[in-house]
Amino acid sequence: MKTIVSSRGINRRTLMTALAVLPTMSGSLLSLSAQAQTAASGDALASWNDGPAKQAIVDFVKATTVQGSPKYVAPGERIATFDQDGTLWVEHPMYSQVMYCLDRVPAVVARKPELKNVEPFKTVMSGNREAMAKFTMKDLEAILAATLTGMPVDDFNAEVKKWIESAKDPRWKRPYTELVYQPMLEVMKYLRDNGYKTYIVTGGGQDFVRVYSERVYGIPPEQVVGSMGGTKLGYDKEGNAFLTKEPKLLLNDDHAGKPEGIHMMIGRRPYAAFGNSVGDQQMLEYTGAGAGARLMMLLLHDDAKREYAYGPAQGLPATKVGVFTPALYEEAKKKGWTVISMKNDWKRIFSFE
Amino acid sequence: MKTIVSSRGINRRTLMTALAVLPTMSGSLLSLSAQAQTAASGDALASWNDGPAKQAIVDFVKATTVQGSPKYVAPGERIATFDQDGTLWVEHPMYSQVMYCLDRVPAVVARKPELKNVEPFKTVMSGNREAMAKFTMKDLEAILAATLTGMPVDDFNAEVKKWIESAKDPRWKRPYTELVYQPMLEVMKYLRDNGYKTYIVTGGGQDFVRVYSERVYGIPPEQVVGSMGGTKLGYDKEGNAFLTKEPKLLLNDDHAGKPEGIHMMIGRRPYAAFGNSVGDQQMLEYTGAGAGARLMMLLLHDDAKREYAYGPAQGLPATKVGVFTPALYEEAKKKGWTVISMKNDWKRIFSFE
Repeated sequence: MKTIVSSRGINRRTLMTALAVLPTMSGSLLSLSAQAQTAASGDALASWNDGPAKQAIVDFVKATTVQGSPKYVAPGERIATFDQDGTLWVEHPMYSQVMYCLDRVPAVVARKPELKNVEPFKTVMSGNREAMAKFTMKDLEAILAATLTGMPVDDFNAEVKKWIESAKDPRWKRPYTELVYQPMLEVMKYLRDNGYKTYIVTGGGQDFVRVYSERVYGIPPEQVVGSMGGTKLGYDKEGNAFLTKEPKLLLNDDHAGKPEGIHMMIGRRPYAAFGNSVGDQQMLEYTGAGAGARLMMLLLHDDAKREYAYGPAQGLPATKVGVFTPALYEEAKKKGWTVISMKNDWKRIFSFE
Repeated sequence: MKTIVSSRGINRRTLMTALAVLPTMSGSLLSLSAQAQTAASGDALASWNDGPAKQAIVDFVKATTVQGSPKYVAPGERIATFDQDGTLWVEHPMYSQVMYCLDRVPAVVARKPELKNVEPFKTVMSGNREAMAKFTMKDLEAILAATLTGMPVDDFNAEVKKWIESAKDPRWKRPYTELVYQPMLEVMKYLRDNGYKTYIVTGGGQDFVRVYSERVYGIPPEQVVGSMGGTKLGYDKEGNAFLTKEPKLLLNDDHAGKPEGIHMMIGRRPYAAFGNSVGDQQMLEYTGAGAGARLMMLLLHDDAKREYAYGPAQGLPATKVGVFTPALYEEAKKKGWTVISMKNDWKRIFSFE
């Protein structure tokens, strides 16, 4: 969750300059024969416009899965990892999990009334969204610990399930789970259809995402890697064993924590990695440092009309969402990572469009 | 690794009494119709003698996988977990991983000569096995930290691969990986053929077991849950990202750590769990506390001729291997767990027999 408050302002001109060279860079990566094969992905990537991003995906899959290819990858090794917030679904103006935590505060206060007059709970109870937007990392950590831990795993799962089925995004008035990017669902399915095992690797809570990952992304709980808290074994009155969520962070699955989480949970270096911010940078570096064909992609939120255009350059608060910095863009350019322009590369963004 | 040195002496009479009622207990769990179906497992469990243990496995698979069964389990939920040392392969007289660590000490001392005169390294270098057998938990931890951490993940994997392909068990004069129990390989395959995802859940090092798990057990690295250490991201001269193993324990995957590791790595409660010692007790309790049909099995090492008969009752040092205590046996009896007698239930133990 570090990205919530850790970003710094950046220079708008630098970003704009960087963006200007985008088509040139990606275009140079294409071979003519590869371009001719775009059609082969057929309807699998139907929500993608023809262009360098779609082409990079198709080329990668062909290079790693066609028998006899010099960059062929054995099925068991085919691992693809996806950041969630801002890569698979909308993260603006606030991570859904943070919304969940804020929504849970009244229940926590009802159970522990002494918190009512203690910050940051007092502010949350006041409903003052403007004041909440100014929360420090320490405030957020207190809210996260109070709302995500101290309860049996099964109770937590039931609460999240109930919330995720009813809570709605204020702009689209739809459940958060409908605000997943259709083109990314298509990439995940296309990769799976070609023998890839797809994983979510999120800075968000592993247990939170697991509740809906299968239904929403077709990714089972065991293929969700996220920030992990400890659990404690206990026994109920009948002697039945159960686990309680503890306020103990075992892994902050963000920045350098992403490769660490990948090693811990998967044990192999991915061949493809998708992200959208500096929190994903190390995951893409780790993926790209492997031998053979590797696919590293970054989603750029540059579509203010259909979704959002954000980052400090757009004048939006950098404290709310992951940041695509000029430095990250420079690294992408230097290392041959592909930047996906939401505006240019995506025919449609949501399945309901 | 706690089981190496944490056991206490037990009363031989208590264990013998407990063992005496074994056939009665397991027999009472059988229904006639289930007995009639044993043949249906066909050759899948060819190394098992007909009896309550084999029957329990077949009954469980039928109950959970036959469409229309009241205890039917959807394929995605079919999770089976297996302890490794003493459950899937020989653990006596010493865990293979401890053998690996002892074998690695000379290389560590060559790199850091100052350790030559420091205990416990001095004793290891002396080759005095008798003195090594008296190592305390603290001694072992120092050896484990020195030999399993402080190197890049890729180097570690290469070292373990080299060792596991050449090191041999002193009794059978065969690689450790040939000392896996053929009946357990059959159970794992039988479960997989019936839609179960099989996991290793070991107190041993997760990274260590992952090196050979696919080749030996047909279990890919991402389905190995074990004691986990932290890693640290770094960059080589060319700027390529890589991970180094750190001497920081994130999870001791033994005793209560097993359910915790299962939650962290799988996120669902298993339907079947196999173990052989008090270190597996909580994993079986956690599995058994779930609704519907659950299979909990404990392997009893009671075959001194073909493998080993051990535990304090047999006069063997309790400090060396996992312990099947009378209390554990009592719990198995009370909760309807099935005890596998190596001597009576297994037609053959190793594939080379």
